[in-house]
Amino acid sequence: MKKFALIVAGGTGSRMGEEIPKQFLLLAGKPVLMRTIEVFVAFDPETEIYVVLPENQIKKWEELCQEYSFNLNHRISGGGDKRFYSVKNGLDSITGEGIVFIHDGVRPLVSKETLERCFNTAQKEGNAIPVVPITESLRKKGGEKSMAVNRSDFVLVQTPQTFVLSEIKRAYQQAYSRLFTDDASVFEAFGKNIYTVEGNRENIKITYPDDLLTATIFWDKLPG
Amino acid sequence: MKKFALIVAGGTGSRMGEEIPKQFLLLAGKPVLMRTIEVFVAFDPETEIYVVLPENQIKKWEELCQEYSFNLNHRISGGGDKRFYSVKNGLDSITGEGIVFIHDGVRPLVSKETLERCFNTAQKEGNAIPVVPITESLRKKGGEKSMAVNRSDFVLVQTPQTFVLSEIKRAYQQAYSRLFTDDASVFEAFGKNIYTVEGNRENIKITYPDDLLTATIFWDKLPG
Repeated sequence: MKKFALIVAGGTGSRMGEEIPKQFLLLAGKPVLMRTIEVFVAFDPETEIYVVLPENQIKKWEELCQEYSFNLNHRISGGGDKRFYSVKNGLDSITGEGIVFIHDGVRPLVSKETLERCFNTAQKEGNAIPVVPITESLRKKGGEKSMAVNRSDFVLVQTPQTFVLSEIKRAYQQAYSRLFTDDASVFEAFGKNIYTVEGNRENIKITYPDDLLTATIFWDKLPG
Repeated sequence: MKKFALIVAGGTGSRMGEEIPKQFLLLAGKPVLMRTIEVFVAFDPETEIYVVLPENQIKKWEELCQEYSFNLNHRISGGGDKRFYSVKNGLDSITGEGIVFIHDGVRPLVSKETLERCFNTAQKEGNAIPVVPITESLRKKGGEKSMAVNRSDFVLVQTPQTFVLSEIKRAYQQAYSRLFTDDASVFEAFGKNIYTVEGNRENIKITYPDDLLTATIFWDKLPG
């Protein structure tokens, strides 16, 4: 079945405390977003790559592609002011049918095995999201009080959240709700059961400056 | 008010995939557990330090203290087969009254500011636990299905979990329950409200081999 990757890079750089959006920071000498695209192409060179970027970063991205002689084929669309609209825009730009990986542009460390698990389960069940266990204690907030919860009842969700393309497109026809924290929650609100698969612990979201250092360590340890 | 630190080092090394228990791995050239002790002494040299170690590691620890000429004063007690019993044993070995920091031996990166917040709030309210926000999406498991939950309703719990000594001692007189995932949950089951304070993101628990590399990065960036 045909594979699509919708790579969403919405970062403005504000949380990193830097001018440069995090997707353009360098990982092993190349912008993170290029590293992320490369992972999907390495997994299957036939994968169609779609990238969503904030409108005001598209020119910069094209300059970077020239500067780094980055020639992997991909189509760009502009992001909305919320992740929901960015994904919706991106999905609208895809034609055909198959399995779509919706992936954070700042997660260049997703493993081949995670991609395989996502693809296989999405083919079979219609969707798959990669999750990892929580290693710290968890507590639920509630005003002044807070309450211990059992961390083994919860998992942390990664990307690529993976779906049959036509179905996730339909799910994204729903009106936006602030309960939509990720693609799985959109799909769930559309009446679907979510299937989880094992992610990989290295598949971190580069959010804070230190994450880039952690990512570099993981990167250096990659096989090959 | 007098300060006590009860530093619990229960790791057997199995999760690290190594023979060496994680508290004995080297961080910047010195066993992690020594780094952890040093943080509390640097915060207040008058702090009384208590260390809980598995019985079969005490000899090794004493050898390491010789090898590294580690001469910060601390008392050692043997751990139980569950963290609950290790903490209970440790608390039983402390006499006097004051504020006790119950801290993971494998969290050498707790900041002075976190310790200050814990101490100040525990003095005022009777307890304090440091927490940090969750940056990944969260999902609740439930058999075949799983369910999106709002990550902003939850926090990740760190240590030192900090209490008025006599009160946490009394809480630990309760019979063990498997719902006791940390000291705060023991205190809560004793009928107390838990007060959260801001932790520091670098204050990771060294659980996996890569965590030691991450810890090294954070360590190198410490002020001073």
